[in-house]
Amino acid sequence: MHSFQELLARFETFFAEHRFPEFPSTLYQPCSYLLNMGGKRVRPVLCLMSHELFEEIDGNAMNTAMALELFHNFTLMHDDIMDNAPLRRGKTTVHEKYSTATAILSGDVMNIFAYEHLNKINSEHIHSVIQLFNKTAIEICEGQQLDMDFEQQQFVTMEEYLQMITLKTSVLLGTSMKLGAMLGGATDGCSRILYDFGKSLGLAFQLMDDYLDVYGDPAKTGKQTGGDILSNKKTFLSTKAYELSNEKERAEIISLFSKNEKDKVGDAIQFYGRKNIREITLEEISQYSNRAFELLEKAPILSKRKVHLKELAESLLKREY
Amino acid sequence: MHSFQELLARFETFFAEHRFPEFPSTLYQPCSYLLNMGGKRVRPVLCLMSHELFEEIDGNAMNTAMALELFHNFTLMHDDIMDNAPLRRGKTTVHEKYSTATAILSGDVMNIFAYEHLNKINSEHIHSVIQLFNKTAIEICEGQQLDMDFEQQQFVTMEEYLQMITLKTSVLLGTSMKLGAMLGGATDGCSRILYDFGKSLGLAFQLMDDYLDVYGDPAKTGKQTGGDILSNKKTFLSTKAYELSNEKERAEIISLFSKNEKDKVGDAIQFYGRKNIREITLEEISQYSNRAFELLEKAPILSKRKVHLKELAESLLKREY
Repeated sequence: MHSFQELLARFETFFAEHRFPEFPSTLYQPCSYLLNMGGKRVRPVLCLMSHELFEEIDGNAMNTAMALELFHNFTLMHDDIMDNAPLRRGKTTVHEKYSTATAILSGDVMNIFAYEHLNKINSEHIHSVIQLFNKTAIEICEGQQLDMDFEQQQFVTMEEYLQMITLKTSVLLGTSMKLGAMLGGATDGCSRILYDFGKSLGLAFQLMDDYLDVYGDPAKTGKQTGGDILSNKKTFLSTKAYELSNEKERAEIISLFSKNEKDKVGDAIQFYGRKNIREITLEEISQYSNRAFELLEKAPILSKRKVHLKELAESLLKREY
Repeated sequence: MHSFQELLARFETFFAEHRFPEFPSTLYQPCSYLLNMGGKRVRPVLCLMSHELFEEIDGNAMNTAMALELFHNFTLMHDDIMDNAPLRRGKTTVHEKYSTATAILSGDVMNIFAYEHLNKINSEHIHSVIQLFNKTAIEICEGQQLDMDFEQQQFVTMEEYLQMITLKTSVLLGTSMKLGAMLGGATDGCSRILYDFGKSLGLAFQLMDDYLDVYGDPAKTGKQTGGDILSNKKTFLSTKAYELSNEKERAEIISLFSKNEKDKVGDAIQFYGRKNIREITLEEISQYSNRAFELLEKAPILSKRKVHLKELAESLLKREY
């Protein structure tokens, strides 16, 4: 059993040993640029940790972890184009630094490399591993599409919002857990519980992202304050604020969000203040976290094996970036 | 043994039975739009024809054919963004009709569906099938990157040009043949010959594309005449013209291609005329075709089994669109 830091180090070693080809550098250099930007590597480490609940880490687990990280970064590269995002982890995004065409193609090739790592799995479970990976990949595309569709709508219901972030973010954390477990030989029942644990953790994680967009320290998050507000992205905060508003307030919040003015972020934060959105969001995050910890408790695995996973989950929920 | 038309009909039936999900329609409708634009389905039919040289068509061959067509259309959708192409098969391209974001995401999801079909293969060869598919997919990305890199260069050598189109176009035709053969139980030697046949055919095919861009009938090709010239794309024609020019003529052709004027296409065609580019291109196409037919001859398969493949190759080389 290894801690987050130990597994991260192990993943980084494997990662460094599997470089992209050198040529054409115009294709592969942007991939390395994004991958070495200092991501948290949450998905690969969750996969390895989950695997280690059942079995020692082997090539199958490492290749799956690698596929998850490559796939995740591929989606980031493309999402940043679609969202017109100038910054990622405090650095210039790929399409801004290079070009949109580069970010499209380098993203595409990273996705194919993810599948190349999956194809290295040597296990009776390979079919179901790739099946779950594909199902999740499709859900993530659907979630991103809903996210974009929602930008055209003034407001969405909380149910719609939760469906969107479940698809866009949570399922990949659930799948990271489940793939590790499946390859470790976990029973179907146990894999499912670990999937649900990852999914709940993912929801808490995304809500924390929404929270940090407004209440985080930009020096730590590497993003501009209120970026989601500026781009009219639906978040838990805006959806909850709308849900809690009467007709007059709804008109106010709609007019506020349709402005393109500089003080839009300040006005939105003030509105959130009137509705206690900060406290409500923190409370909701803690509910999803508790649900995640309950699921982990329920998983039929020796308690002492779960220690590192618990620590990781706790640190993700205390994060400031 | 079936003709192109018969296999095409069979593929279209399978294709119609495997629709995309309905929701979100903003994601899937653009996929169907492109896929139903009337492509020639060359790759899936080559795969089925190659498979039928050895074995009756089964679900494995159909799923592989489907993966090839989905993958190919995914690359078209993304290439059209990168190339700023307004038209594809005479119709508005996806990014023009919908948006760039849509074309990125719908392309991504089509690629994942391609892998989902590959994962349905139930054969001892699945590992090597996916491995070849991935290798080819990576080569296609590299080819597209070189194509874009070349746009920034005034001219490239014939060797560089041929490497680029080999990666961007030819390998997928070779792979379509080889995957069909592998799944049909062909020997390694025979699969390799069929791969080389497809690759040579692919080179002839791409040169024909280059030819039709200038000398084709726009009413039949569905593209504007000289589109490649306008966008400074390197083609066999421009590369050969440069190769055959002396220093003074090279200066002339460079200045011609760096213009953004309306008469650029006419001037280029006139220059090609002086260098007999039309005839040289047709001669080169016929050389690659002959090479392809020689390889087909060499493949250790009963001659009468090769009839339909020969017919298909001939029709591809006589095409006007």
